[in-house]
Amino acid sequence: MTDLRKAVERFWAAAEARDWAAFADTLSEDVVYTLPQTRELISGRERYVRFNREYPGDWHLRVERVVAEPGQVVTWTHFTVGPEEMDAISFFTGDGAGRISVITDFWPEPYEPPVGREHLAERY
Amino acid sequence: MTDLRKAVERFWAAAEARDWAAFADTLSEDVVYTLPQTRELISGRERYVRFNREYPGDWHLRVERVVAEPGQVVTWTHFTVGPEEMDAISFFTGDGAGRISVITDFWPEPYEPPVGREHLAERY
Repeated sequence: MTDLRKAVERFWAAAEARDWAAFADTLSEDVVYTLPQTRELISGRERYVRFNREYPGDWHLRVERVVAEPGQVVTWTHFTVGPEEMDAISFFTGDGAGRISVITDFWPEPYEPPVGREHLAERY
Repeated sequence: MTDLRKAVERFWAAAEARDWAAFADTLSEDVVYTLPQTRELISGRERYVRFNREYPGDWHLRVERVVAEPGQVVTWTHFTVGPEEMDAISFFTGDGAGRISVITDFWPEPYEPPVGREHLAERY
């Protein structure tokens, strides 16, 4: 179970390197990927690797933060696609054999702060 | 350092109970709260408690998931405000004395899936 953090680190390094063989090697054959914001679900290693391989744009990522327990890991990653920047938060669950079996991704977007809290919050 | 997970669990239970004394007790006096999506920052326990106490609406929360290391914790919480539902992802850092010193919150919103990946993704 303790290998999951390393698997997740290899997952992101392989994605950035477009090394799809190394990327696939971090995944369970029956990996399930979900995006709660769009309610999309992708099942299986082959489809999920293809989803990443086909993802459009010259995207690059850096890992901002990793929080890991033996069986689950969360990452905060920062993506750039040309001038565009975005953050992703990903929850990973392991299969007990050091591979990733479940990934749940969130892609929060910028928004304007609601009025009425300017007395408490500053902008940065 | 090992108390941070418990502090975070008390933080969410106290928020749901509107027990602002218990809530404040989980926080460092110089706690810093940031919202990267709006680039808002709130400094200090008093202001941050007030921000939560004044937050409008009859909101309720349940904790969906906790991932904890000794010095940092991530939670995925689900909020309801009447018929509205939303998820929050919160990164917590501890002050080494069992209190929360940094909180970074993300509030991802639903969006329509981009076209061109219907051959890989199903909707749920």
